[in-house]
Amino acid sequence: MSTAPRRQVRLNLFAHACGHHAAAWRAPGSSVSRLGEISYWEELARIAERGRLDALFLADGQSIGTAGVERGPAWTLEPITVLTAMARATERIGLVTTVSSTFWDPFHAARLLASLDHISHGRAGINVVTSMTDAEARNHGMPALPDHAKRYATAGEFIEVLQGLWDSWPAQSILADTEGVYVDSSLLRPPRHRGESFEVAGPLNVPTPPQGRPVLFQAGASAPGRELAARHAEGIYAVAWDLESAHAYRSDLRARAAALGRDPETIAVMPGLVAHVAATEEEARRVRADLDSRLPVADSLRQLSFFTGQDTSTWELDAPVPPLPPLEEFTGPKGRYATVLRIVDSVQPTVRELLGLLAAGGGHATVIGTPESVADEIERWVDAGAADGFNLMPPTLPGGITDFVEQVVPVLQRRGRFRREYEGTTLREHLGLPEVRSVNAPRALRA
Amino acid sequence: MSTAPRRQVRLNLFAHACGHHAAAWRAPGSSVSRLGEISYWEELARIAERGRLDALFLADGQSIGTAGVERGPAWTLEPITVLTAMARATERIGLVTTVSSTFWDPFHAARLLASLDHISHGRAGINVVTSMTDAEARNHGMPALPDHAKRYATAGEFIEVLQGLWDSWPAQSILADTEGVYVDSSLLRPPRHRGESFEVAGPLNVPTPPQGRPVLFQAGASAPGRELAARHAEGIYAVAWDLESAHAYRSDLRARAAALGRDPETIAVMPGLVAHVAATEEEARRVRADLDSRLPVADSLRQLSFFTGQDTSTWELDAPVPPLPPLEEFTGPKGRYATVLRIVDSVQPTVRELLGLLAAGGGHATVIGTPESVADEIERWVDAGAADGFNLMPPTLPGGITDFVEQVVPVLQRRGRFRREYEGTTLREHLGLPEVRSVNAPRALRA
Repeated sequence: MSTAPRRQVRLNLFAHACGHHAAAWRAPGSSVSRLGEISYWEELARIAERGRLDALFLADGQSIGTAGVERGPAWTLEPITVLTAMARATERIGLVTTVSSTFWDPFHAARLLASLDHISHGRAGINVVTSMTDAEARNHGMPALPDHAKRYATAGEFIEVLQGLWDSWPAQSILADTEGVYVDSSLLRPPRHRGESFEVAGPLNVPTPPQGRPVLFQAGASAPGRELAARHAEGIYAVAWDLESAHAYRSDLRARAAALGRDPETIAVMPGLVAHVAATEEEARRVRADLDSRLPVADSLRQLSFFTGQDTSTWELDAPVPPLPPLEEFTGPKGRYATVLRIVDSVQPTVRELLGLLAAGGGHATVIGTPESVADEIERWVDAGAADGFNLMPPTLPGGITDFVEQVVPVLQRRGRFRREYEGTTLREHLGLPEVRSVNAPRALRA
Repeated sequence: MSTAPRRQVRLNLFAHACGHHAAAWRAPGSSVSRLGEISYWEELARIAERGRLDALFLADGQSIGTAGVERGPAWTLEPITVLTAMARATERIGLVTTVSSTFWDPFHAARLLASLDHISHGRAGINVVTSMTDAEARNHGMPALPDHAKRYATAGEFIEVLQGLWDSWPAQSILADTEGVYVDSSLLRPPRHRGESFEVAGPLNVPTPPQGRPVLFQAGASAPGRELAARHAEGIYAVAWDLESAHAYRSDLRARAAALGRDPETIAVMPGLVAHVAATEEEARRVRADLDSRLPVADSLRQLSFFTGQDTSTWELDAPVPPLPPLEEFTGPKGRYATVLRIVDSVQPTVRELLGLLAAGGGHATVIGTPESVADEIERWVDAGAADGFNLMPPTLPGGITDFVEQVVPVLQRRGRFRREYEGTTLREHLGLPEVRSVNAPRALRA
């Protein structure tokens, strides 16, 4: 009897600024002076591709910085242009951008993504988010952010418009008959969408991209966010502090998808993972502590006051975190507070340790250790059904991803858990996703 | 006494589909199968850079094709992504995209263009247009195009918002002080724009680009279009069938700019130029006639009926164009009809010849001849004050631009009218434009 092939791990590099640790830019030799240089971003993509990662993933925001632009870099170059340059600096790795359905016109978004998919020969992905701040709204003609329910309703409609547009100009309609027509316009399928948030006639003026549709990512954790993800997402950037919460999230997501008639195996749930890797666990801890020590404590405490609704300025840094009120009594953003409670409950950190834990990836799963122990943890989550893989959030860049690619990836490869070479050429193939069957495509094209 | 240096010619490559002749895609060996391949566009940019051209210029449209997608290719890839890839395939040439102020959110547009300017190290330009069709409006949530006056008012506001956003995050504010702040937020200059068409708080979340502001192109020929160009444009893509109309246009534009307190020398007026070049004039004419012969006559006559408001289906192809009513009696789009009248009046073409003239660049200046005679015509226009240079509209691509670069550019170089090497690194430098003095920049930065 042959043994079943071991479940493959999916890995994206979530590339952000100088790395995901809030003090990354303060460390000696950081990449802070390179953030406006496209060669920096291309280098990150090349390192990730050397590690045979599934995709490079970029977040996005529509204002100069929610955390305060004084405290560190967030946005420099615009992500679609960055990914386009990356597409030409690499050959196989997927390229995922974040797009706000609250602020983007779907015709422009569909067009840019279709074009990126053509330019990258089928490697584009789109992470649809609904945005979080009024500052972003004020950059786009709105006095404030629409409410949560409205934003999620718009996001669902946005995704459907994108899909209709991507399907609307089938490649097969391009006859390029030099004695006749260029396009057989009877094969065009303009979506003629008229909805609550958008009216878009179509067709798109970019032919259907190589993947049919770029791979759709989503990241919502609320009930409407999960429902949207269950309905549409092919990849999910999840937030989970520990295996238990990841497992609960993934199970819920899969159940929702199944209830909607989708095969849960066609959804890759990829929590964020902050991995500090070194030859010994002591060394990994020392490097992490060095980063933590560079964080201005006053800034971090001010952020923690916001996260907890408590005046933290009097808390003793090296004492345990004082008792916190239960989630039900907290009136601020609950997701983040729930994470704080979970961290305090699970590791009983000192105040200084809590600030450090929140500083790198703000509540995402964090592992500090040797290549083997990091690989162990990755396998443990995947084998437990808590994750299909991870969105890697290196504390520093490019160092953190170089370490991961050179030290952890080979361990996963030896264990038969991660590809040694790309087998396919598209992001959809890397993630093992099915081909797209367009809702609008003419019958003959659905074969 | 030294002779004054001869006035330098500005040259852009306006790259479009398989070339500007409507039958370009029908010719044997055309680039029609490569339009979705980024390598095609990169090749065009490299050829233009080999010729030391000022910029590569891309038009844009927001629907699948105003001329009818059956009749030939118009749009395939989206231009900002194409120019981003070109930026990485070249080193010096400018990269100009067209952006519709009627359909773009200015924060997104400012951000994409600023990012392109960073990625290209100061080579970005933006050609602001107001769009022309209801089909485009229906792709962006509008039942029909806003009226002409409203579109131009919006365009002026759009440009001012872009300028305010590009100025809003001065590079000098980025201290990256590892012991202190990343950005000195007191140096940010959010535009806080509240206008008729847009409300945008700012600042932009991309730092001020290398050129301060990407170079601003404009293309309007109507009175509001000219007024907008006189106020803001640094480069103008003009339409002129002959030297006289080009001279009249450029003189009017310069007078309007001077009246607004601008130095007319800081505006490069670059009419479209369709050049058919070959070793002999006979060969050039033969190649052109071959292209014309590939045009389906029924399609062209249908287009001419629209341009003239006449039933042209009964016109004899090899007879002179019948008498046409004066411009005042024509109720359709007047610009195109005026061009038809001007062509008929100046060259007395047969119907077939008129169809051919309109087929390549639709009323733009057309020269057919040897490298020397094409260079003569370019010099004649520039010396007469009818143009600062040209937006080259090769009838076929890449052949037409390869011919121009290999045959005409060396003649202009020998005559001291065109650069042999780039002197500067930015588009602003190529065009001899002054540095930007930001309206919003803090006093200390204006030095």
